[in-house]
Amino acid sequence: MTLKASDLGEFGLIERLIARLGTPGEGVVVGPGDDAAAVRLGGGATALVTADLLLEGVHFEIGLSSPSDVGWKALAVNLSDIAAMGGVPRFALVSLGSPPATPAATLEQLYAGLDECARSFGVSVVGGDTAKADRLIVSVAVVGEPGNGPIVQRTGALPGDVLCVTGALGGAAAGLALLRSASHDERAAALVERFPLLAKAHRRPVPRIREGIAAARSGASAMIDISDGLARDIGHICEASGCGAVLSGEKIPLAEGIDDVAGWAGVDSLAFAAGGGDDYELAMAVPPAALEELRRAIGPASLAIIGEVTEGSDVTLERDGVRMELDSLGWDHFGGDT
Amino acid sequence: MTLKASDLGEFGLIERLIARLGTPGEGVVVGPGDDAAAVRLGGGATALVTADLLLEGVHFEIGLSSPSDVGWKALAVNLSDIAAMGGVPRFALVSLGSPPATPAATLEQLYAGLDECARSFGVSVVGGDTAKADRLIVSVAVVGEPGNGPIVQRTGALPGDVLCVTGALGGAAAGLALLRSASHDERAAALVERFPLLAKAHRRPVPRIREGIAAARSGASAMIDISDGLARDIGHICEASGCGAVLSGEKIPLAEGIDDVAGWAGVDSLAFAAGGGDDYELAMAVPPAALEELRRAIGPASLAIIGEVTEGSDVTLERDGVRMELDSLGWDHFGGDT
Repeated sequence: MTLKASDLGEFGLIERLIARLGTPGEGVVVGPGDDAAAVRLGGGATALVTADLLLEGVHFEIGLSSPSDVGWKALAVNLSDIAAMGGVPRFALVSLGSPPATPAATLEQLYAGLDECARSFGVSVVGGDTAKADRLIVSVAVVGEPGNGPIVQRTGALPGDVLCVTGALGGAAAGLALLRSASHDERAAALVERFPLLAKAHRRPVPRIREGIAAARSGASAMIDISDGLARDIGHICEASGCGAVLSGEKIPLAEGIDDVAGWAGVDSLAFAAGGGDDYELAMAVPPAALEELRRAIGPASLAIIGEVTEGSDVTLERDGVRMELDSLGWDHFGGDT
Repeated sequence: MTLKASDLGEFGLIERLIARLGTPGEGVVVGPGDDAAAVRLGGGATALVTADLLLEGVHFEIGLSSPSDVGWKALAVNLSDIAAMGGVPRFALVSLGSPPATPAATLEQLYAGLDECARSFGVSVVGGDTAKADRLIVSVAVVGEPGNGPIVQRTGALPGDVLCVTGALGGAAAGLALLRSASHDERAAALVERFPLLAKAHRRPVPRIREGIAAARSGASAMIDISDGLARDIGHICEASGCGAVLSGEKIPLAEGIDDVAGWAGVDSLAFAAGGGDDYELAMAVPPAALEELRRAIGPASLAIIGEVTEGSDVTLERDGVRMELDSLGWDHFGGDT
C-alpha cells in the first residue's frame, strides 16, 4: 500500500519533510517547526521569517468572505506567526494565483484588504509573484525582527509555569459555523446579525503583535498563536517543551455570543473555545514571577490565566474537577485539517 | 464588460496590484518590480527577499519532470532572482500544497530535490507551510543578502552600456518542446537522447549566483535573470531604465543542439534563444570601462556580449543588419504566459 499525504496528516507530513532537510546551516537561530524561523544575517541582524499558504475552498470560501477579507486574513495569519515569537513584522511578499477569468476588481479588492492589514501593523508589501491557477491561491511570506525582548519559542515552558491567553476564544470557529449555515438557517442568520464580531473574527483576525512583544519582554517562557485550536496549540507547546498541561475549562475566555452559538449548534461552548481554530490569539507559558509584569504590560482585561504547565506529557482539559475529552464536546465538527 | 485578470496579462496585473499598495514604508530600499526587493532591518543589515509560485500544469508538468526536479527548480528560480541583484541567497521558506492522495514518497522526493539545490548553493530551508490542494503547489520565498558589491537593479542601464549574458540560451525552451513531443515523435525522442543538457536546462536550471556577485562587484549598471526570454527581459531592463537596446542576433549564444531542435520544430534558432524563457541565465548592462574587469571575474567563456543600450525606448533584434520581430521567428510557440 502506498503511503499517502493524507495518511500522515498535516503534522506528520511536515515532520517527514523537515527530516529530509538534514541539519540547519550557518545562521539558523530557530529552524523549522516553530511559528516562525529566526535567522542571522551579515552585520549581525536577526530576522524572523514565516510563510503561510491560503487556498480557496480550504482556508477560505468565496461567498463567506469578501476578497478584501481574504487579503486581510492572508497577511494577518502571517503577522500572527511573527507575534508568537515576540517579533515585529516589517515586510511581506505576496504570491497570488488566480483563474484567468477572475475579475481584475476582485484581485484589486484582495490587495486593498491586504494593504489595509499591512498599514495597520506597519508592514510594507515589497514583492511577490502572480500566476494563473484553477482556484484562488494567496501565498504570503513575512520578514520581521525581534521586538525589545528575546525571541520566544515553543520550547521553553517549564512545569509550574502559568498558561495564559490573550483576548477571547472560539469566535472564529463560531463565526464560520454560522456563516456556513446562515443562507439556509434563520437562527444562524439571526445570530450572525446579533453577534457581528463572530463573523469578523473569522474574516479579519487581528494579530496580537503588541501583546507578543510585551510577553517576550516580560519573560514568557514559550508562546504560540492559536491557529489549530487552544487544546492542540497548548499540545504543541508541551510537545516542544517536553512537559504536560492542565487547562481549566471554566477559565477559558469565551468570545461574546459563543454560548448562544453553542446552543444553536448543540455542542459545548468549549468545543468552539478550546477546539475551534483560527482565533490568532496568543497562548503563552509564563513563570509565576513574571506574571505581574506581564499583566501590567498587556493589560489584565486582555489576559486570562487558563491553566498550568505540568510534569509528564498529558494535556488535560478539566471543568469542575472533571477531565474532558475534546471529542466529547463535539470538537470534530469544528477543528480538524482545514 | 468586466475586466478579467487575463485581459491585463501578467505584467499588467502586477502593475495594477502594485498600484494598490501606495508608497513603500520605512526600510524599503528596493520595492516591488525588480527580481528581488531589498529591505533594511534594525542593526543596519540589508536583506534581499523574493518569492515565486510554481503550479502543476502551469510551471511544470508531472511526467516531464520528476518530483525531485520540481523541488530543485522551485528553489532555483528563487535563487536566480537573488543572483540577479548581485546577492547571496541564505534562507528559504517552502509552502507546499498537494492533493491528499499524493504519495508521501512523491513529496519526500520533491523535498530531496529542493534540499539538493539548497545545499549546492549554501541555502538553509528554515520553514514553510503545507496544505491540501487540487494540484501540486510549491510556493517558495528566499531571503538573501548583498554580495561584496552594490545591489544591482533593473533601473541603472545607460545608453552606451554593453549588454551581456551568461551561459547559453534557449536550452530550457528547446528541452521543454522536445519533452512535450518525445512520447509521440521519434525525432523529438532522439534529440532528447542526443542533447541531454536541453531537458536538464528545463528541469534543473542552475542559478548564476557567482556570476551575479561578480557582475555587481565589477560595476554592472543593470541586471535581470532570463525567465521571460531574452528579448522580453532586456525589454524589462530598458523600460525600468528609460532606454532602448539593440541586440545582435548572431552574437546570442545558443545552447548546444538548438539548431537541430529549431530544424525539427521548423522555427528559427533565435525563437528559442531570444524568445524562449526559463533559462535563468543573467542579462546585464555594463559600462564599457567595467567590461574587462567583468570578463576577468566571470570568465570570458561564460560571458557573451550581445548588444548595446541605446537612447529611445525600442528594443531591436538584428541579424545581418536586418531587424527581426520575435513573432516572425515562431516565438509564439514557446514564449507567452506560462
